[in-house]
Amino acid sequence: ELRIGSQGHVFIQCYKLVRSRLDKRTQNSDQRIGVRLSLAFLGPDRSNWSHFRLKSYNVFLLSPLQNYEVKQGSNLVEKIRLFIHKVTAPLHPKVDPNRPQTVKFLSHPFSREKQHLYSFFYKYQPIGLIRKYFGEKVGLYFAWLGVYTQMLIPAAIVGVIVFLYGCATVDDNIPSMEICDPRHNITMCPLCDRACSYWKLVTACGTARASHLFDNPATVFFSIFMALWAVLFMEHWKRRQMRLNYIWDLTGFGEEEEREESEKAKVKLTCTDRLPAYLTTVVTMVFMILVTFAIVFGVILYRISIKAALHMSTYSDQSNIRATVKGTAAVINLVVIIILDEVYAAIARWLTALEVPKTDKSFEDRLIFKTFILKFANAFTPIVYLAFFRGRLVGRPGNYLYVVGSYRMEECAHAGCLMELCIQLCITMLGKQLIQNNLFEIGIPKLKKLLRRRKSDLDSKQEEELNRSLYRHEKDHILGPFVGLSPEYMEMIIQFGMVTLFVASFPLAPLFALLNNIIEIRLDAKKFVMELRRPIAAKAKDIGIWYNLLRGLSKVAVIVNAFVISFTSDFIPRLVYQYMFSVDGTMHGFVDHTLSYFNVSDFQPGTDPLQPMHLVVCPSVSRYKDYREPPWASTPYELSKEFWVVLAARLAFVVVFQNVVMLMSDFVDWLIPDIPKDISLQIHKEKILMVELFMKEEQGKRLAARENHNQDNCNSPSSANQSPPRPRSRPVSHGTSH
Amino acid sequence: ELRIGSQGHVFIQCYKLVRSRLDKRTQNSDQRIGVRLSLAFLGPDRSNWSHFRLKSYNVFLLSPLQNYEVKQGSNLVEKIRLFIHKVTAPLHPKVDPNRPQTVKFLSHPFSREKQHLYSFFYKYQPIGLIRKYFGEKVGLYFAWLGVYTQMLIPAAIVGVIVFLYGCATVDDNIPSMEICDPRHNITMCPLCDRACSYWKLVTACGTARASHLFDNPATVFFSIFMALWAVLFMEHWKRRQMRLNYIWDLTGFGEEEEREESEKAKVKLTCTDRLPAYLTTVVTMVFMILVTFAIVFGVILYRISIKAALHMSTYSDQSNIRATVKGTAAVINLVVIIILDEVYAAIARWLTALEVPKTDKSFEDRLIFKTFILKFANAFTPIVYLAFFRGRLVGRPGNYLYVVGSYRMEECAHAGCLMELCIQLCITMLGKQLIQNNLFEIGIPKLKKLLRRRKSDLDSKQEEELNRSLYRHEKDHILGPFVGLSPEYMEMIIQFGMVTLFVASFPLAPLFALLNNIIEIRLDAKKFVMELRRPIAAKAKDIGIWYNLLRGLSKVAVIVNAFVISFTSDFIPRLVYQYMFSVDGTMHGFVDHTLSYFNVSDFQPGTDPLQPMHLVVCPSVSRYKDYREPPWASTPYELSKEFWVVLAARLAFVVVFQNVVMLMSDFVDWLIPDIPKDISLQIHKEKILMVELFMKEEQGKRLAARENHNQDNCNSPSSANQSPPRPRSRPVSHGTSH
Repeated sequence: ELRIGSQGHVFIQCYKLVRSRLDKRTQNSDQRIGVRLSLAFLGPDRSNWSHFRLKSYNVFLLSPLQNYEVKQGSNLVEKIRLFIHKVTAPLHPKVDPNRPQTVKFLSHPFSREKQHLYSFFYKYQPIGLIRKYFGEKVGLYFAWLGVYTQMLIPAAIVGVIVFLYGCATVDDNIPSMEICDPRHNITMCPLCDRACSYWKLVTACGTARASHLFDNPATVFFSIFMALWAVLFMEHWKRRQMRLNYIWDLTGFGEEEEREESEKAKVKLTCTDRLPAYLTTVVTMVFMILVTFAIVFGVILYRISIKAALHMSTYSDQSNIRATVKGTAAVINLVVIIILDEVYAAIARWLTALEVPKTDKSFEDRLIFKTFILKFANAFTPIVYLAFFRGRLVGRPGNYLYVVGSYRMEECAHAGCLMELCIQLCITMLGKQLIQNNLFEIGIPKLKKLLRRRKSDLDSKQEEELNRSLYRHEKDHILGPFVGLSPEYMEMIIQFGMVTLFVASFPLAPLFALLNNIIEIRLDAKKFVMELRRPIAAKAKDIGIWYNLLRGLSKVAVIVNAFVISFTSDFIPRLVYQYMFSVDGTMHGFVDHTLSYFNVSDFQPGTDPLQPMHLVVCPSVSRYKDYREPPWASTPYELSKEFWVVLAARLAFVVVFQNVVMLMSDFVDWLIPDIPKDISLQIHKEKILMVELFMKEEQGKRLAARENHNQDNCNSPSSANQSPPRPRSRPVSHGTSH
Repeated sequence: ELRIGSQGHVFIQCYKLVRSRLDKRTQNSDQRIGVRLSLAFLGPDRSNWSHFRLKSYNVFLLSPLQNYEVKQGSNLVEKIRLFIHKVTAPLHPKVDPNRPQTVKFLSHPFSREKQHLYSFFYKYQPIGLIRKYFGEKVGLYFAWLGVYTQMLIPAAIVGVIVFLYGCATVDDNIPSMEICDPRHNITMCPLCDRACSYWKLVTACGTARASHLFDNPATVFFSIFMALWAVLFMEHWKRRQMRLNYIWDLTGFGEEEEREESEKAKVKLTCTDRLPAYLTTVVTMVFMILVTFAIVFGVILYRISIKAALHMSTYSDQSNIRATVKGTAAVINLVVIIILDEVYAAIARWLTALEVPKTDKSFEDRLIFKTFILKFANAFTPIVYLAFFRGRLVGRPGNYLYVVGSYRMEECAHAGCLMELCIQLCITMLGKQLIQNNLFEIGIPKLKKLLRRRKSDLDSKQEEELNRSLYRHEKDHILGPFVGLSPEYMEMIIQFGMVTLFVASFPLAPLFALLNNIIEIRLDAKKFVMELRRPIAAKAKDIGIWYNLLRGLSKVAVIVNAFVISFTSDFIPRLVYQYMFSVDGTMHGFVDHTLSYFNVSDFQPGTDPLQPMHLVVCPSVSRYKDYREPPWASTPYELSKEFWVVLAARLAFVVVFQNVVMLMSDFVDWLIPDIPKDISLQIHKEKILMVELFMKEEQGKRLAARENHNQDNCNSPSSANQSPPRPRSRPVSHGTSH
């Protein structure tokens, strides 16, 4: 039996009660119930729990050790995952919860623990062990990463199916068939001034076919699916977090901790003290975002100018030129993003320090928020430009828009900018995720470790010798310091942004994310166990500000996807053509419909092509992709009625899509309870038991008091009235009668 | 000093501590702290509190009495409202919190209490007293109603300003000036087949001018204002509720209660048992909503047919006809709404009973939800029809849309349907609110009381005599029974819907609501105190499902207002004209621009006017309000480019408005903390005190135990190891050292 502290009898009583009543699942966790019952006497929150235990039961305080409670709650989680577990049985870590080394917490089981964890990290995630070794905060991170990765599996599968649907239907796609049909013989306006010549639409055949892979009706379905997926993910995580909170005894922890911290702050700063810092922050942030924009614009200028220069030269292989320019631009973008990311992290840290936040938690939240804004702007500005601005600010033939002197803005390839957006997303996801995160994450700690060793000027033999002679804790001291979880979370949030925000344009994003995360979990785990010093265990009830950022992203995702589908893809123009303008109700003639006419004599002087090249006859009329009136209309080159019809349809789609998806999201959110039913039932049972127990104890005390009383004052019947004032003079037996 | 139960010493200790530490504000509420401390030993929730007190301290249980705790929390609220109070001092009830009759709770102070309440109800709301007399649930209703009414004041003021702005600018409004200018001499197409003749636009002058009162740029501002107002209201209420929860000791109450109830249900019904009931519910609800639609359609048909019939007759005063038809239609609508409301309430109750919900709370929630859906559909279908459908489904001259044989659908007056929407809203709000709610609420209970007396066949003299001889409780028995708060809440929610959903079309709605509510509060109060039996006091932590309905409404309001502004009002067409089509950038020519041409020879046979009446010459071309190509275009009567431009602009406005307002709402929501700072600080302080107290008690116990131990076993130094197992064998003094 269990007996803690001076209130032992309560606990024995309680323990028996609990043991006989609670279901089998909780029976193992004897100690947990005992401890929880002691908490019952501490009032509505359990945040002071460790404090209390510490003082009353003399637990030796050592920060990383304080989490070594003897709990087997993890078999609760096990049960829920039973059906998955049966399938993935060989992947599970064979962890015996009653293993002695997790209990002996005044010995130093570090190396054995580590060995244990290290071997597990290649299997299923042992969240319980992670929490025991690293504390709740790191435990929650890995649990969250696990849930996210798990949820990515269905998304990736559906994404691949959508992509395959695109592949399968590429040959039935009438618009790309029309483009590829040489009989149409459509002459297009030149893509740049002077240097470029007219070109045949049939040369865009490849791009058009490739575009169909990402731009087909299934993408619309996938966008809706992913919006609901994001909601489901949030709900799933809330439930998992609740479960972990229960198992890890964190209910009631959290906000209390923060408030206590905030009272520790001695120095009080008024609003006027803080104003300069806040102003600096706002100004710097705006400036930094403008720098991001400027750099993106710089890359655009690079693309334009290089393209123009290459066209000017005698080198005439067009497709090669395009590939080169696109490739280098994307790489430059990537490099800039990676460099700026590091710069921004430093700036955010400096700005937050300037603000002098009251508590550690406040510091962390502010830092995270700033870093998020900057990194998000950094990662998404080029993508947003590609999705929504490229090819829309070009003007029209004969009246092009020029920037910085005489550079014409870029146009999109014939089939919309979706293809280029895909390439950009692909490069960013693969490049950023693989290069920046994994290489940097693993490479830099290794490099630092190496440098630190270099400093101590040892050759390898001496080193090995020393290594053998060193104690475990001495060896661990050589490792790099733990810098917090923010970079890990940030990386994942940016990835989540890529997966949800632009999923309409790139259905393979979840697959890429999934592949990255499978590697990421293992690398993170290895890094935490082997490459870094063991962090001081920190308690945490939830993932804090990250949850809000995720929620914000999934809300923004709905509107961004609506715009991507309606404005970036050709989905709406195709629908409008089919149901409003098509003569026979099919897509035949769509390509012709999207192209406007241009009279070559209307070129501004000096901008017409120098050499109409490989065309036998110089055309009198060329085509360009826009909805404008033909030169022979009463208002030539004005936006045509078709343009406005399509625009209205696009906007109507945005309105409908946004509201339908939001309604569905709210419905799913409402449908799924935040607390799993078994957990809420369990909590309720424990509460009832606790109250019953307390009643019994009170009864016993009262009976004992009465007996004492009767023994002492049996001669004076009126003494009851002289005893300390009882609120009501009802007979005492009334209270204990049942 | 205070001492409750057998743990008296704890309470004395605690009481001293608390008294010395807590700030002046809480010092009065001695008992509250004592009781709260006893709760500390009951575990994290306080829901079992009354139960516990009851058993341990023998409080006599009498349901309406159990709320007679001696608390002075209301002076907390007083303090916050200090600045308002100073102004409204004469309106405040002079309630002395230490008044004896609120403490003596085994005597029968009903009539005095009642007197007390009755006299107050004409002054400021004494929420504390209401709660004491009626219980938390009714207290929360009046508190909520108070907050709502209070928040309506600024809304009403801004609404009146917006309306006055409309009045002030009506003479500067170019479109209505153009309509009123007889020089334009525009001939309009007839408004009905055969019977009606062509008419001059100048006759619509009055309507056009009146429309401007409700359709001007200030309305857009007011819509945004009201969306934010709704968010502010929700936030304000959350904070007020939190404060009341703290003052009324309800923290932790609520969900526990529900779960306990759900365990009481013995009979377990499976899904298949429930399926028929659910199906019945869904089918009946859909049918009922269809009935509502049918009735609205019926009223439309009535209007159309009566109008046609009146036109056919020799009676030729057009404006009089219009007024008659509009008036009777609105009255019919109102009567139908009022009758259906009663029918729907009965149906909802029957359906909910069919479903056999597990708990009372579940029953109530389901009933409320069903009633809400039905009543909402009932109240808003005619308004939605007017706002979004009327005048849009008419077809065009020469190709009108006919329903049920040969009735042409109604058209709007020239300046849009906004004016008619206003009239409908005005009638509904005044009629429904004043007639249905207040008359019914007061009249029917009085009637019932009268009938009940009639039954007992007494003449007035006998009655008076009896009245004097009867005891208070006998007199109270004659009163009507209390039927719950749902009708009161429902009425207010429907009103909230009117105020927020269609505020763009009727800026005076908040004013009407405010006026109604000022009467409503008093009437409700009078009814509760004087006309109905005193209800059994019920505990409640929040206003439950009503909060969710309010939230849902304020979300829907954003999108509905966006549509009202962009589609019902002429705001967007005016903007588009001014910035795209106007020659000189002013509004001159707008009216001409919105009217399309119709060649009178294109009338379908048999639909041209019989007598082109009071026009000297029969026109060859007449005008109608739509954006269509003129008869001489290549595609006559097709929707013109202008139509699509305006449609795109309207939709763009919806997208922008919705997202901007949602963003602002979220920002406001995030900005205002849910728990008032002083309350959270107070809760925190109490918690710290409680923990400290517990620590001291533990220390004392341990010391006492050690002394006992030393006395008993002073000869055997090893006995410490034989005593019940202590987890760690550290010296005991470690835990008690400070």
